[in-house]
Amino acid sequence: MQGDLPSTDAETAAARIASDATVLTSGFGSVGYPKAIPLALANSDRDLRLTLVSSGNVGDEIDVDLVESGAISRRFSYQSSSVARRATNRRDIAFSDRNASSIGDEVQYGGMVDPDVAIVEAVAVGEGWFVPSTSVGQVPAFVEAADELFIELNHQHPLGLQSVHDIYRPDSPPNRTPIPLTDPGGRIGTSYVQFAPEKLVGVVETDRADSTYTFRDPTDDDLAIAANLRSFLSDEMERSPVFDDAIHLQFGVGSLGNALMGELRALDFGDRDVVYYGELIQDGLLDMLDSGRLASASATSMALTADGQRRLFEDIERYAEDIVLRPADVANHPGLIDQFGVVGVNSAIEFDIYGNVNSTHIRGKRMVNGIGGSADYNRNALLSICALPSALDDGETSRVVPMTFHVDHTEHDIDVFVTEQGVADVRGCSPVERAERIIEHCAHPSFKSDLQSYLDDVKAQSNHIPHDVARAAEWYES
Amino acid sequence: MQGDLPSTDAETAAARIASDATVLTSGFGSVGYPKAIPLALANSDRDLRLTLVSSGNVGDEIDVDLVESGAISRRFSYQSSSVARRATNRRDIAFSDRNASSIGDEVQYGGMVDPDVAIVEAVAVGEGWFVPSTSVGQVPAFVEAADELFIELNHQHPLGLQSVHDIYRPDSPPNRTPIPLTDPGGRIGTSYVQFAPEKLVGVVETDRADSTYTFRDPTDDDLAIAANLRSFLSDEMERSPVFDDAIHLQFGVGSLGNALMGELRALDFGDRDVVYYGELIQDGLLDMLDSGRLASASATSMALTADGQRRLFEDIERYAEDIVLRPADVANHPGLIDQFGVVGVNSAIEFDIYGNVNSTHIRGKRMVNGIGGSADYNRNALLSICALPSALDDGETSRVVPMTFHVDHTEHDIDVFVTEQGVADVRGCSPVERAERIIEHCAHPSFKSDLQSYLDDVKAQSNHIPHDVARAAEWYES
Repeated sequence: MQGDLPSTDAETAAARIASDATVLTSGFGSVGYPKAIPLALANSDRDLRLTLVSSGNVGDEIDVDLVESGAISRRFSYQSSSVARRATNRRDIAFSDRNASSIGDEVQYGGMVDPDVAIVEAVAVGEGWFVPSTSVGQVPAFVEAADELFIELNHQHPLGLQSVHDIYRPDSPPNRTPIPLTDPGGRIGTSYVQFAPEKLVGVVETDRADSTYTFRDPTDDDLAIAANLRSFLSDEMERSPVFDDAIHLQFGVGSLGNALMGELRALDFGDRDVVYYGELIQDGLLDMLDSGRLASASATSMALTADGQRRLFEDIERYAEDIVLRPADVANHPGLIDQFGVVGVNSAIEFDIYGNVNSTHIRGKRMVNGIGGSADYNRNALLSICALPSALDDGETSRVVPMTFHVDHTEHDIDVFVTEQGVADVRGCSPVERAERIIEHCAHPSFKSDLQSYLDDVKAQSNHIPHDVARAAEWYES
Repeated sequence: MQGDLPSTDAETAAARIASDATVLTSGFGSVGYPKAIPLALANSDRDLRLTLVSSGNVGDEIDVDLVESGAISRRFSYQSSSVARRATNRRDIAFSDRNASSIGDEVQYGGMVDPDVAIVEAVAVGEGWFVPSTSVGQVPAFVEAADELFIELNHQHPLGLQSVHDIYRPDSPPNRTPIPLTDPGGRIGTSYVQFAPEKLVGVVETDRADSTYTFRDPTDDDLAIAANLRSFLSDEMERSPVFDDAIHLQFGVGSLGNALMGELRALDFGDRDVVYYGELIQDGLLDMLDSGRLASASATSMALTADGQRRLFEDIERYAEDIVLRPADVANHPGLIDQFGVVGVNSAIEFDIYGNVNSTHIRGKRMVNGIGGSADYNRNALLSICALPSALDDGETSRVVPMTFHVDHTEHDIDVFVTEQGVADVRGCSPVERAERIIEHCAHPSFKSDLQSYLDDVKAQSNHIPHDVARAAEWYES
């Protein structure tokens, strides 16, 4: 802490926040979120009805403790605990799910909420600046949008984190200029976030640790998906001159994404530069970096295990040569994803035979976590790949369905589907051709004939996308 | 025609095209498409199985004559005649519907098709260059991607069209640099498209006219929607400082879009610059320009009536001071739509109570035209508005439904819904809150109580997005 800054404690800070305040927090990938003030809010006996906005998933102090205390009445835009999920599905919390790239603008310019206070985690703070901790997310936009600012100075995190940050602020529309990033590993900003000094109400010191990730060991399905993905990417690099010199990859967060990233080490990239332009750094990516196969990695946050975080922290200066953390409106920016010709690999809950993807709502109704940044990549990547196991529950539940009843990624968005069964490259296909390829190459053997029978029957219709909604709905009841 | 170029006639050109060729054509907004060679192909007695790719809608010579001749077996990515629509729904044509912004890249880099020949319309041609006629679309990408090139030199169109064109070619990913456009009315390219001279097989001269648009006169519903939209925009300009100096608008094509554009003249924009950053120039926009209320207009094509085209052609030099036509990968570029903070206004077939929008398939099955560029704007605009009449067929069919069975624009994309009944501003709303606002403000009186009863009943579920699929499906049968 540098200069003459207002020091306070978490309870005093919490007491100052209005009971119906709109609170913007740091946090993305369950790291870098404020912990002490949310916990003090959860432990207060006030009757709170907060609107809470984070740009990505946060950890237990917010998504468990604060939710369980009943303090949150409205929430944007990704939640990641079973407690928050249940509260969302009971609709005790009014939850609205937005794309990670746009939450900053929506808060700042779009009238989505009327922000009161921002609470951010930092590893260093001075007069008019702070260095974010383990995530960036939409923090710069949130700090500009809020009337008041609290900073949690977290001593658990190394100050060396400043060397991974590249904070660039896009101007306000309509005079926004093109983001001048031409290399994912390049730097166009500062290592700190600036703020108007008069906004700072208090600095709270803490040493609470992040809620780190736990990834399961790769399953047989994960490894089979990884092998199919490698085979497809290998052919594609051979086929398309656009990948002659370099390939830019992105992977969705989770055990599968982490496994896919790690298993990519077994792919022969030849002389190509392999670059990561994504949202989150996972353990698998550290493995790729350590193996020397990755030129650089750009993201907005980490989603690391406790072990992965320790690896990173212990060697932060070395990793900082190759890792850059950016605001989410840069890391997930549609125009930049387009520029770099990103190959995006994201998972989902299910996809249907025509290529519509549901990544948020079980049976179209029950929210899991949220859309996060998956649509930012699926929509704007040069090559959008949806990868997931063909069935759940030991083959009891098919993740390839006749019709999904919640669509997060449309039939216009996904190029390739990969399961442990195979690869359906649906580029250039009509909807019915997509269905044929998806059933043949991606469906689980237990469900293939039922899906084929559905398709054969509806094909009698004279419709571009033939459907039998009642029968498609029955699929979920069997 | 300048220099020593290979002149030919349409029949000779058509005879040279392989019977199973992949043909990329100019054309967007039913104008600027090649006419003579497609007609010669339609009139040939060869057994053709062509793959035809246009970046937007084309006119009758392709979407009626060539379709009726049975020559097209595969088609991307927007069709606009009842003949093409029927062939698509019979699945005689394998039709795949892509977003207008990305078709160029998908053809050139994505492996969507294996292009053979490009046929483009021009008003002037020389050694290695031509000036496009009434549309640009993805022509520059198509010309680069194809092995061979035919140019139709159309004498119906004024050479003055060169002054509206601004042809900028983004580099190839991953070394693509940011598009340096900072003002929608600015120029960053040339008035002509360049091509490798050895690709040019023949120049065909023609004087066939474009298939111009016919817009109906504004209906009472159109005028009521326009009044509701004006009222909303007026409040929004008052509320949000982002619109203090300028507002950037986009309108979807069609009679409603055209009417909304024209009726916007009645809105008091104060001292603000009013700028159009969209896909198509319609007659209503010429009215806005003539009234002096529009600073500039950027698009990729025209969608004008015969009268509108005459107005434009007769005064092309004056209009060219304010109108710029760009390639669709610039006009519809996600990053540029974001930069300018565009307010996008697009219509649809229907939307559901939770805010999902269907703009392509009647009852989720029967293709109408295609998605065009609507998703480019809906996804990336600062403010995305979906505007349409609440009912069809004199109030017989509701365009607000419990659940739409084809989703082109997801619950994450649309901010505001406008019908002749009112305005539902759903920013910051949870799905159930969206449903309440949409039913209250947008539904037609004949369907309001049925929709409310559906919502009341499903709300008994403990789900984030409560649904009764079977009952939602019945909605279409009553």
